Amino acid sequence: MAEPVKIVTGIGNAELHRILVRGYDLNKELVGKITFTDMTSLILRGRLPTASEAKMIDALLIILVEHGMISHVVAARLIYHCAPEAMQGAVAAALCGAGSVHLGSSEWSAKMLVDALPVDAEKPDFDAIAASIIDDYDKRKQRMPGIGHRTHAEGDPRVETLVGIAKETGVYGKYCELIEKLSALTSERRKRLIPVNVTGIIGAIALDMGYPWQITKAFALIGRTLGAIGHIAEEIRNPMATKIDAVIKQALVYEPERM
Amino acid sequence: MAEPVKIVTGIGNAELHRILVRGYDLNKELVGKITFTDMTSLILRGRLPTASEAKMIDALLIILVEHGMISHVVAARLIYHCAPEAMQGAVAAALCGAGSVHLGSSEWSAKMLVDALPVDAEKPDFDAIAASIIDDYDKRKQRMPGIGHRTHAEGDPRVETLVGIAKETGVYGKYCELIEKLSALTSERRKRLIPVNVTGIIGAIALDMGYPWQITKAFALIGRTLGAIGHIAEEIRNPMATKIDAVIKQALVYEPERM
Amino acid sequence: MAEPVKIVTGIGNAELHRILVRGYDLNKELVGKITFTDMTSLILRGRLPTASEAKMIDALLIILVEHGMISHVVAARLIYHCAPEAMQGAVAAALCGAGSVHLGSSEWSAKMLVDALPVDAEKPDFDAIAASIIDDYDKRKQRMPGIGHRTHAEGDPRVETLVGIAKETGVYGKYCELIEKLSALTSERRKRLIPVNVTGIIGAIALDMGYPWQITKAFALIGRTLGAIGHIAEEIRNPMATKIDAVIKQALVYEPERM
Amino acid sequence: MAEPVKIVTGIGNAELHRILVRGYDLNKELVGKITFTDMTSLILRGRLPTASEAKMIDALLIILVEHGMISHVVAARLIYHCAPEAMQGAVAAALCGAGSVHLGSSEWSAKMLVDALPVDAEKPDFDAIAASIIDDYDKRKQRMPGIGHRTHAEGDPRVETLVGIAKETGVYGKYCELIEKLSALTSERRKRLIPVNVTGIIGAIALDMGYPWQITKAFALIGRTLGAIGHIAEEIRNPMATKIDAVIKQALVYEPERM
Repeated sequence: MAEPVKIVTGIGNAELHRILVRGYDLNKELVGKITFTDMTSLILRGRLPTASEAKMIDALLIILVEHGMISHVVAARLIYHCAPEAMQGAVAAALCGAGSVHLGSSEWSAKMLVDALPVDAEKPDFDAIAASIIDDYDKRKQRMPGIGHRTHAEGDPRVETLVGIAKETGVYGKYCELIEKLSALTSERRKRLIPVNVTGIIGAIALDMGYPWQITKAFALIGRTLGAIGHIAEEIRNPMATKIDAVIKQALVYEPERM
Repeated sequence: MAEPVKIVTGIGNAELHRILVRGYDLNKELVGKITFTDMTSLILRGRLPTASEAKMIDALLIILVEHGMISHVVAARLIYHCAPEAMQGAVAAALCGAGSVHLGSSEWSAKMLVDALPVDAEKPDFDAIAASIIDDYDKRKQRMPGIGHRTHAEGDPRVETLVGIAKETGVYGKYCELIEKLSALTSERRKRLIPVNVTGIIGAIALDMGYPWQITKAFALIGRTLGAIGHIAEEIRNPMATKIDAVIKQALVYEPERM
Repeated sequence: MAEPVKIVTGIGNAELHRILVRGYDLNKELVGKITFTDMTSLILRGRLPTASEAKMIDALLIILVEHGMISHVVAARLIYHCAPEAMQGAVAAALCGAGSVHLGSSEWSAKMLVDALPVDAEKPDFDAIAASIIDDYDKRKQRMPGIGHRTHAEGDPRVETLVGIAKETGVYGKYCELIEKLSALTSERRKRLIPVNVTGIIGAIALDMGYPWQITKAFALIGRTLGAIGHIAEEIRNPMATKIDAVIKQALVYEPERM
Repeated sequence: MAEPVKIVTGIGNAELHRILVRGYDLNKELVGKITFTDMTSLILRGRLPTASEAKMIDALLIILVEHGMISHVVAARLIYHCAPEAMQGAVAAALCGAGSVHLGSSEWSAKMLVDALPVDAEKPDFDAIAASIIDDYDKRKQRMPGIGHRTHAEGDPRVETLVGIAKETGVYGKYCELIEKLSALTSERRKRLIPVNVTGIIGAIALDMGYPWQITKAFALIGRTLGAIGHIAEEIRNPMATKIDAVIKQALVYEPERM
């Protein structure tokens, strides 16, 4: 028989009388003593946050909870309407939409920033790095993530808020600076405002806080889970999925297509 | 043309320069000023919480974040391993497991409590109601949700913690009392401890806080979203999905079955 | 060390040079020799189908592929629009809607039929069983699954088609008879047509073919996977998710709600 | 009021007494007359298939249904165990794993082929194109999709089967030729066999049949939906999710990690 495989995890463990999280006793040391925001830092960063970090994390968790009747929550409402006995499926449907176009683009934006500016880089030349990123995307004819927004074309108010808190809490660092430089330089070249967008600044802030780029959309996923449940809860009080269906059907024209 | 359909929502709205949430300006009044826990109350209950409620909500959000290498996070790790470019799908997979057997049973337990004891009931006879619930489940030969636990057969330490906070914050009310009575009476009849389980007490506390039974698993869904991302983040630092595959394959025997 | 756990599966196995499915060599005995419909029977029933069964399965797989711009495919389109790099998430979102209200109700309907009429029952009294089911649902004030349809209130043309094929292929059996009896008796009592609906007849046919009630919605899930991809493929050729968003927003009224 | 938005779809429409699919009457012209495989072509390609195409589609649909106890079906079993009342969620979890590493890589492979060899290219120089793709991936230090396989390192038997059917049915075209050339040239350079893998050949065949690269994983998604349900159905007959949990826990070591 082969050497037994060992699977080593450092996150948590459930014993008969204790549940351990990052080495803390969940019941004796965490619940009732820390906030969910603290727990977010403990789980994702491996330590409890400073007060400044907690303030920043709260902002990152809150900022994407709600954005009106957008695709993710419409999907959640429709799926809930079809399967009300499995509300978790409706939430899962909403989360599946945290991709590169909406909600999930922090990840792609953060990857772009890290690829261009390594975590351990010192005294970076922001102008040169920003120019090189822009040239690279131009050459590949790809749309740069992290800047530009359809609804908030004149600048997303959420970005200003987050940048303000990042500066106030001392989190603002080289990745925030780089993405603001990217926006400024792109705007200059295209002679119109191409603002930093909300998922762009979230990615930059998360990098500046030390999160790996791959999980920078954690905040959006947690926040939107709450947001989706908020819409589902309204759907329960005041169902509107059939009205959503109705307005789509009113606009619908069927023109059978064959090849 | 038919009268235009109107879809009225009270949650949020995204304008060009403002995002409104329950009538508050997201950027001016919420981000940087409230915690994610406050936001949870605002979204799900329609108002900011008192300090006591916030403490209770924090406990409800934290308590199910992490329980070691359980089914939901194993599923999340395996799916992430197959589709690392779409981490949201791995989180969605984990959430799909918030059903009646694990993680999601608050909903079924809370429904059972509300069906037996209406929200506006006054001076309920807890003994009679508990007995009637037990008889009803016995008659239908169904397993009662909210009490009993496989891993924590001698009592789930999380329940004691939550009950303590519920009492301390003044949240403890008739639904907490009823589920404790259910456990006591069932234990008495079966002559062995059938403890309240963690999703049972979460459901009862959420009802006592005024949440509708259908969304009592909101806390579990939000918490486990964080927990799943924690495991995915470890999977990124230290991949173990192929080891999980390996230990399953070591135990696997193929005995082709046909009819 | 504890006795090693053995996990015994009868479905399939991947060896270095062979893939086995229910004991067949996938490459030498199945691919190129059988249809996907045959494979459905092999996987779900453990044997290849007769020609009659194959005809019936084809009908069950096809019947729910497409039903216009309904909730599941709207959700798929919206999620695809947000995360086009992870099309599987959009399909998953659609499938999450296969619940008790739409698409997935075969399961609940089939369970109702089996609970009332065991698989090994002989010479059942259909009138008595149907009356007893109806009385039971009336008493619990629950809506009976399997009969009644919002869009096709005058009778669902798909039911007639499936019943025709079930009779032609000899699949029509006691469960088909029972659900037709349920519809007839309910219509008589309410003095208006309450037709068998499409998921109801699918459940009954699947039971008559020997499928367990729990997986009677397999056909809907497979069919709708194809249907959802069909809509996503159109979304790629001719994007309409933003138009769907637009018509919803045109109908939207924001009336901030607080408690 | 703005000009009403029109949403034009060519797939299907549900009328009161008719359901139309690509202009066909579902009940009168399709169900009972065509196979699910024909329906797949009708939905995804806009026309019924020739007999040769149908044979090829059957092979594409069957080939990935089953591959033993792999990640996707383990995830489906675990999620089903937690939420048996919502089997659709377990299937959705499995599908979420159809990503770039396993099951879903047809898409990435097909995109690579189309980017290098446009659909309307005539008399392509396969050697030059293959060399240019390899050089490009080498330069970017990325792993090429479509070739190489962990389990089937000496060649995947499924590829040979599919290539055989592609040649027999006349489907084999420039994309099949290109991916075989890619494998040959890479093997030559690395002085060891780097075989075409199964998702690579599926992508190439689908392109040769005229499917857009974005939906080449449709076949895998449909097939694996069936496969996942097959495993769930076995889980119902013979539950093994708790055994899967047990073998993972036996191998588990908890070493609390903090930063």
